[in-house]
Amino acid sequence: MRIGVLTGGGDCPGLNAVIRAVVRKGVQDHGHDFIGFKDGWRGPLHGAVVQLGIPAVRGILPRGGTVLGSSRTNPFKEPDGVRRILDSLAKYEVDALIAIGGEDTLGVASRLHEEHGIRCVGVPKTIDNDLSATDYTFGFDTAVNIATEAIDRLHTTAESHMRVLVVEVMGRHAGWIALHSGLAGGANVILVPERRFDLDEVCGWVTSRFRASYAPIVVVAEGAMPKDGDLVLKDAAAQDSFGHVRLSGVGEWLAKEIERRTGKEARTIVLGHVQRGGTPSAFDRWLATRFGLHAIAAVDDGDFGTMVALQGTDIVRVPLAEATAQLKTVPAALYEEAKVFFG
Amino acid sequence: MRIGVLTGGGDCPGLNAVIRAVVRKGVQDHGHDFIGFKDGWRGPLHGAVVQLGIPAVRGILPRGGTVLGSSRTNPFKEPDGVRRILDSLAKYEVDALIAIGGEDTLGVASRLHEEHGIRCVGVPKTIDNDLSATDYTFGFDTAVNIATEAIDRLHTTAESHMRVLVVEVMGRHAGWIALHSGLAGGANVILVPERRFDLDEVCGWVTSRFRASYAPIVVVAEGAMPKDGDLVLKDAAAQDSFGHVRLSGVGEWLAKEIERRTGKEARTIVLGHVQRGGTPSAFDRWLATRFGLHAIAAVDDGDFGTMVALQGTDIVRVPLAEATAQLKTVPAALYEEAKVFFG
Amino acid sequence: MRIGVLTGGGDCPGLNAVIRAVVRKGVQDHGHDFIGFKDGWRGPLHGAVVQLGIPAVRGILPRGGTVLGSSRTNPFKEPDGVRRILDSLAKYEVDALIAIGGEDTLGVASRLHEEHGIRCVGVPKTIDNDLSATDYTFGFDTAVNIATEAIDRLHTTAESHMRVLVVEVMGRHAGWIALHSGLAGGANVILVPERRFDLDEVCGWVTSRFRASYAPIVVVAEGAMPKDGDLVLKDAAAQDSFGHVRLSGVGEWLAKEIERRTGKEARTIVLGHVQRGGTPSAFDRWLATRFGLHAIAAVDDGDFGTMVALQGTDIVRVPLAEATAQLKTVPAALYEEAKVFFG
Amino acid sequence: MRIGVLTGGGDCPGLNAVIRAVVRKGVQDHGHDFIGFKDGWRGPLHGAVVQLGIPAVRGILPRGGTVLGSSRTNPFKEPDGVRRILDSLAKYEVDALIAIGGEDTLGVASRLHEEHGIRCVGVPKTIDNDLSATDYTFGFDTAVNIATEAIDRLHTTAESHMRVLVVEVMGRHAGWIALHSGLAGGANVILVPERRFDLDEVCGWVTSRFRASYAPIVVVAEGAMPKDGDLVLKDAAAQDSFGHVRLSGVGEWLAKEIERRTGKEARTIVLGHVQRGGTPSAFDRWLATRFGLHAIAAVDDGDFGTMVALQGTDIVRVPLAEATAQLKTVPAALYEEAKVFFG
Repeated sequence: MRIGVLTGGGDCPGLNAVIRAVVRKGVQDHGHDFIGFKDGWRGPLHGAVVQLGIPAVRGILPRGGTVLGSSRTNPFKEPDGVRRILDSLAKYEVDALIAIGGEDTLGVASRLHEEHGIRCVGVPKTIDNDLSATDYTFGFDTAVNIATEAIDRLHTTAESHMRVLVVEVMGRHAGWIALHSGLAGGANVILVPERRFDLDEVCGWVTSRFRASYAPIVVVAEGAMPKDGDLVLKDAAAQDSFGHVRLSGVGEWLAKEIERRTGKEARTIVLGHVQRGGTPSAFDRWLATRFGLHAIAAVDDGDFGTMVALQGTDIVRVPLAEATAQLKTVPAALYEEAKVFFG
Repeated sequence: MRIGVLTGGGDCPGLNAVIRAVVRKGVQDHGHDFIGFKDGWRGPLHGAVVQLGIPAVRGILPRGGTVLGSSRTNPFKEPDGVRRILDSLAKYEVDALIAIGGEDTLGVASRLHEEHGIRCVGVPKTIDNDLSATDYTFGFDTAVNIATEAIDRLHTTAESHMRVLVVEVMGRHAGWIALHSGLAGGANVILVPERRFDLDEVCGWVTSRFRASYAPIVVVAEGAMPKDGDLVLKDAAAQDSFGHVRLSGVGEWLAKEIERRTGKEARTIVLGHVQRGGTPSAFDRWLATRFGLHAIAAVDDGDFGTMVALQGTDIVRVPLAEATAQLKTVPAALYEEAKVFFG
Repeated sequence: MRIGVLTGGGDCPGLNAVIRAVVRKGVQDHGHDFIGFKDGWRGPLHGAVVQLGIPAVRGILPRGGTVLGSSRTNPFKEPDGVRRILDSLAKYEVDALIAIGGEDTLGVASRLHEEHGIRCVGVPKTIDNDLSATDYTFGFDTAVNIATEAIDRLHTTAESHMRVLVVEVMGRHAGWIALHSGLAGGANVILVPERRFDLDEVCGWVTSRFRASYAPIVVVAEGAMPKDGDLVLKDAAAQDSFGHVRLSGVGEWLAKEIERRTGKEARTIVLGHVQRGGTPSAFDRWLATRFGLHAIAAVDDGDFGTMVALQGTDIVRVPLAEATAQLKTVPAALYEEAKVFFG
Repeated sequence: MRIGVLTGGGDCPGLNAVIRAVVRKGVQDHGHDFIGFKDGWRGPLHGAVVQLGIPAVRGILPRGGTVLGSSRTNPFKEPDGVRRILDSLAKYEVDALIAIGGEDTLGVASRLHEEHGIRCVGVPKTIDNDLSATDYTFGFDTAVNIATEAIDRLHTTAESHMRVLVVEVMGRHAGWIALHSGLAGGANVILVPERRFDLDEVCGWVTSRFRASYAPIVVVAEGAMPKDGDLVLKDAAAQDSFGHVRLSGVGEWLAKEIERRTGKEARTIVLGHVQRGGTPSAFDRWLATRFGLHAIAAVDDGDFGTMVALQGTDIVRVPLAEATAQLKTVPAALYEEAKVFFG
């Protein structure tokens, strides 16, 4: 059996661990043959392929990024895209396809399976942890660890100068990284996209922290938004591709507003790409490896149109269509739970 | 309401995070009063207490160990132990007790609740992750990360000298740390207490790794045991307090046997206490913090005789008696899953 | 003998290690008495003091920041500042003063010693490593390690998307952090304040890296500046307090210019405050500790008006006036040495 | 010009950084041709060679170990060894040899140069930092960081159980790693090979630490030895190849003696190989890279029979014979300096 593999969307620590597990198990236990498509859906679209056997996956387990490259190319938006994909799969005699990616990449896999009978198995990947049907996605734990270490470091510098430090972390539509790293790092305010924040309330927490003779750390997800009345700089907000309104540079905006309103010096740190690169945490390597092993099992069972997912400590299979139907966001109750540490 | 708190058994990264969450939520949201008992059950036994309020828990979230101290003292094994505990709780006017510990510590809490009506809530703690009824315990993720980083480091030194490196990790009765860190670190052999190992098979994996021009890493849980026929050094094995036969220094014994049988140089690294000290990983801080918040909720609901536990991403409550009834060991199927990476 | 201690300027990992060593040696070996001034020169100016004995320095060795607080207050710029300092020192019966800080803080100490006979010993502190007369200052090694780890992480994400990543590190007037972390992290371009860069040359290196099928990492010190002709956005540059022209946000500006000129996607990461907070590296703890021990020795020898400094592996004393006379910048020859790795 | 490169002795983080710098500069700036000899002097002895060009050194900067392999083979101790080396160098038309190693490896290079006119340049490598003529060797800083992080972790676990923890670190003949990591980690006793320790004194420090309500950490170099009278277990000591008497397992022996004499529970942690593997610290990458660049410069200047060395912040050249004449050990004064922190 010849199996194609591709990785799409933003890179994420653990992608290589999935690829390695898929190939090791596929070749050693089942005698499958593999072909790697370069740069997500761009690979089958343009016929860009790489050899993918045991030698190609040697030593890649601890490496961040993806040896297959990635892109956000969507064949359904390319002229004649789907036909070219089908031709590619035929040309390279691909019996089944393992697609590793997020909502977009897996959405394509789901449609190719449903509309064109392509035998696809999906592996979920989102550093933001916002994919439904799985408890966690790999990459998320690494990102949270990196953000938490950064917050740890910032506490002492904040205290030394009695400044507010605003830390902007990833999370466009879901605040999982902000919530987890904020709680783990002992932040004094955590702001998430799921709940518009009230600047007066934020400034209240900041001020109360100073009153206790400590310097506050504010963790804000990049997609967090103030309440309408608070948004003075209208033009800084714009609609993104999901139709959500986003404030570009929310961390910097927030620091300025806090400084203006409380009279306390405030600085911003935008963690950015550092959160998504480099070696995966042990948890992410474990999860990615198990996802890879179970994706091969799904292929062998002929269980196409499914995605592997983590539920508790079990790897299960869920329909691709269901997994990509809606984002998994932070529930209100969980956010409320964290509030005892605010201020 | 006055709540007593104690930590028992071996220390574990995250204990302080539990204590902090318990006190922050208890004081701020419910106006409770706290008292810390020193060194596990030794505290109420000897009337050794410490003040436990907001100031005492400032800054302890990222710190390993336990500010309350710990011990393995079991009041049921001390002369007049239970009565002295009851007297202590009466003297300090303790309305409820939060006991943070493993099988032993929680077993005492369970009996005190059932036999003497003490209002106890348990928080599970075992670095080995071998407690039933909870998907994970805090400290485990930190230990796995430390072991994985060590294995990462050992790969290059093994390759440079083409040596076998045997890494002994924690896990007396359960191989969770060995299995997770071995998989995450790309080990070539993983040995766990749940399954007696066959030296010929181990040497076969070692040899096959060398044939592929790589140097093997063998991860062995401290409680792993060879098959009877393989155990030449009879006197090195002894029964521990659980009645299990244990081979003291299994890592060193294994390295010698591998060297003797394969003719390849083999060295041992015993990770030991480094795995259990120091700052908790982000995951462990998150889990410990949530356990603490939910323990207070259980107290407030009057839900005594229970233990908080993680199931999926939810914190639930389970009966203390059930949780301590038997160890959670590595299922055979999960161990088999890992074998594709052996050799 | 009563010794006052203060820390001035930006915080730096290792400040607490100096304070601890000073107090431990002073109290234990010499029976000195200590007084801590809060927030740099603001402390003696406003009579803000804290107790400073063995208990106050327990456990602070691995902690970033400074338990004494810091500020950039300069008594020579405050109304009646010097007289208020002198009054404070008299009031608290301070026999000698240990000032830990950079060019500004030590410049004040130097003038107080020369013009007013205050018995001062200086300990050099600059995270940028730009103080003359000492091979290294503590904090620098920590910052370089943090920047290097970030660059390590960014390589894989750059490769996965074949993007240019521009990493802006600290260094207003000297490029030591950029040079060291750039070399250690395998950067493909390193830009320092000491040498104006030529955008064409930078884009040439970027392009040549892509031609070799790799994605380039550009490390740029925050104080680096393009050649005049390249500076399209005139208004983005401004004179700072040293009279140097600085381009605010050079990293972001550079990424845009590279993207515009090469057609390759480019992103910026500004490491910012993360570089200066948190636990010091082993080297920085060692250096800071030795600085502290030798500062006490200088006080005991009555060797005032001096600063401790590292030369090779020895701690020596140099005149304060000399040490603060001019910045230590990256020599041209050293920068040229690194160029073999560009492109 | 064709240049041979080899790495000998125990592996050390930074070896690959030297190799990369040598090749990058040699090829790009001088058009040299390279040949890699496998496994130290075993390579030219047996004619085991590998290609060594730009592609072979891609991506190896952050990797521990050595891509050339290593061994302790000494051609002067092999039958016909020197002649076989000379033949190999002639056969592969090697014009100059860069030998990267410690006392042994460089001692061979020195004799080959002096006695046989082989054009050798040495690069010093010893994780123990015990080579004369250079302030530091790469690998040492990494080892000290790893040991310090381990000590950091052990403090909290020691405190939680009020136990003595004995940490055995590398250092057979010199206590540099013990001294640096002990000071940086806040150890309460540091024992080095340069000074025989007195058990009563050690137990005194341990006891005084407990009296202050803290748990002691004892850092001991593997080559440290008790005073003669203290050495009860005579047979545990043996002469090593340098003619030094060594106590095998000094850490474990010490923990037992401390427990026996003070009545306090004591445990041992032997850090072992973890100290020498894995990614080099930023300092070690910087030092190794500069050593590599300057080794090529020495070759180009025809400055053979020399070793590159760090003095202050400069890379200089010293005669190979001088560098390997005697070990660099911890001076008594420096050890005394640390004692203020004992107890």
